[in-house]
Amino acid sequence: EEEGGGTVLRRYLGEHGATLDTDCLLIWDGGFDFDGSAVLTTGLRGILYTEIHARGARADLHSGVFGGAAPNAANTLAHVLAALKDRDGRVTIPGFYDDVREATPQELEEWSSWPQLEGALNFAVGARALEGEAGRSLAERVQTRPTLDVNGIWGGFTDAGEKTVIPAEATAKVSMRLVPDQEPDRIFEALAAYAPTLSTPGVEIEVRRLSAGAPPVVLGSDSAAMRAARQALETAFETTSRLTRAGYSIPVVIDFQRHVDAPIVSSGFAQFDCNVHSPDENLVLDHFGRGVEMMIRFFWEYGKEVLWTRS
Amino acid sequence: EEEGGGTVLRRYLGEHGATLDTDCLLIWDGGFDFDGSAVLTTGLRGILYTEIHARGARADLHSGVFGGAAPNAANTLAHVLAALKDRDGRVTIPGFYDDVREATPQELEEWSSWPQLEGALNFAVGARALEGEAGRSLAERVQTRPTLDVNGIWGGFTDAGEKTVIPAEATAKVSMRLVPDQEPDRIFEALAAYAPTLSTPGVEIEVRRLSAGAPPVVLGSDSAAMRAARQALETAFETTSRLTRAGYSIPVVIDFQRHVDAPIVSSGFAQFDCNVHSPDENLVLDHFGRGVEMMIRFFWEYGKEVLWTRS
Repeated sequence: EEEGGGTVLRRYLGEHGATLDTDCLLIWDGGFDFDGSAVLTTGLRGILYTEIHARGARADLHSGVFGGAAPNAANTLAHVLAALKDRDGRVTIPGFYDDVREATPQELEEWSSWPQLEGALNFAVGARALEGEAGRSLAERVQTRPTLDVNGIWGGFTDAGEKTVIPAEATAKVSMRLVPDQEPDRIFEALAAYAPTLSTPGVEIEVRRLSAGAPPVVLGSDSAAMRAARQALETAFETTSRLTRAGYSIPVVIDFQRHVDAPIVSSGFAQFDCNVHSPDENLVLDHFGRGVEMMIRFFWEYGKEVLWTRS
Repeated sequence: EEEGGGTVLRRYLGEHGATLDTDCLLIWDGGFDFDGSAVLTTGLRGILYTEIHARGARADLHSGVFGGAAPNAANTLAHVLAALKDRDGRVTIPGFYDDVREATPQELEEWSSWPQLEGALNFAVGARALEGEAGRSLAERVQTRPTLDVNGIWGGFTDAGEKTVIPAEATAKVSMRLVPDQEPDRIFEALAAYAPTLSTPGVEIEVRRLSAGAPPVVLGSDSAAMRAARQALETAFETTSRLTRAGYSIPVVIDFQRHVDAPIVSSGFAQFDCNVHSPDENLVLDHFGRGVEMMIRFFWEYGKEVLWTRS
């Protein structure tokens, strides 16, 4: 229910959020940093998730008989995707960066001293090199810069062996992480108008939006709930804590922010190498146990504070 | 057994082909032209079939956490494929066109009067436009020019809905139709060396060859068997016949040509709109019946000729 496809929680908040007697909101869908610090999130990237569909011939065609004459939906889709994000990691959708709010000088200063970010990401990614938007620091690229990634692609003959078809259709799932103040609706319209212009003469390109997505969110960082959560995290996990902007999206956060009048604290218990959204996603038992302790400590500390405030 | 994956027929011909007492070879794996003419093939394009494999991170990664830092195998594969064949249909593999034999002036002259080729191909393909190598006629593009087509592509999340992964791997099946005097071995080596240079820093590209493929073939056109076959086709099907070079490949033809000392006649009974290698591939019953008659006529006519020659 908290992801882009959810509908019930969103509807409930719209109808009843304002009537809830809420002191604070805990959104526990994050985790720890690569150096073991607890992370509290002061902002979330938004997301726009689309499918780009390419259609050429009326059916798959024999590549010997028709090769040299028939358009190939897969070759053309490759041209479209290659043109959407260039080799320097820049997204070419017109106006894509127009509303991007730059990181503040304080954020840039804090991130410049972020220990071992590159080494940690290199370790987690395990590729021969990291990639991303040219001219931007790694900390900006994963927090305050938007992205465009192909999440999946398919078309034509995908079993073992050889089949000599020219695919009539090919499709890519393409999503974008958005940052303040990009608007998903506006970016979608720009993409839907732009992608067809990147096609070849024989192939039709259609961009479909899979869900409403999520706008980017900036959360506050100075509430009593935030202070209590930081203290509880640091004590239970015997570590430091850090405020960051998260690169990921939690679509329902915007609904909580819109409809419930209460400070939001966003964090979580997953360790950095938890393989989030990947095969073998996992939570170490130590974090599970300390997480129970953290919640007890949080409710104790914050409960005292709320009682004091109300008394 | 006649396709690229076949091994038994090839081995048999190598061991026993020279000892067979063979008058002629009929290879019946073709069909009729768009205007109803019977087609006899005087040459076949060859084929080289590969898989291009892209590998970035050690596993699929969350696009929110790692977007802006992790290489994306699918985005990079799109860059590689887009660069391999440009928007004008030219293949960019170094040396790809070096050994291409131009069509003869006689062929070009005959094809310039080929009735309705473009209309027929447009009808069969059913796309909004035909595509192919810029600066070459349609007849050349489907007969005497080499091609490069993505036959299949896959990677990442391909089910319904949204999953925000950065794919660690993506793969494309990529095959090339080759023409005289291109050599599959040489083209493969050039592609295997070239494709990795089209990658991005974080993604490794590997080109795998799926089979030996087939070299292009030029067959003779003036044998007694060819004359008898043309006459039998024209009589049984009440139509004209035409000599063309086929765009497709029949890998075992090269083995027959190498190991059996006999003229080759290559044709077939499939009508033009038979959906070859596609869903609903079909043969109309009229062609089945007339095909039986054609073969009876051929063996009668050619048998007389062989008897006369031997007597």
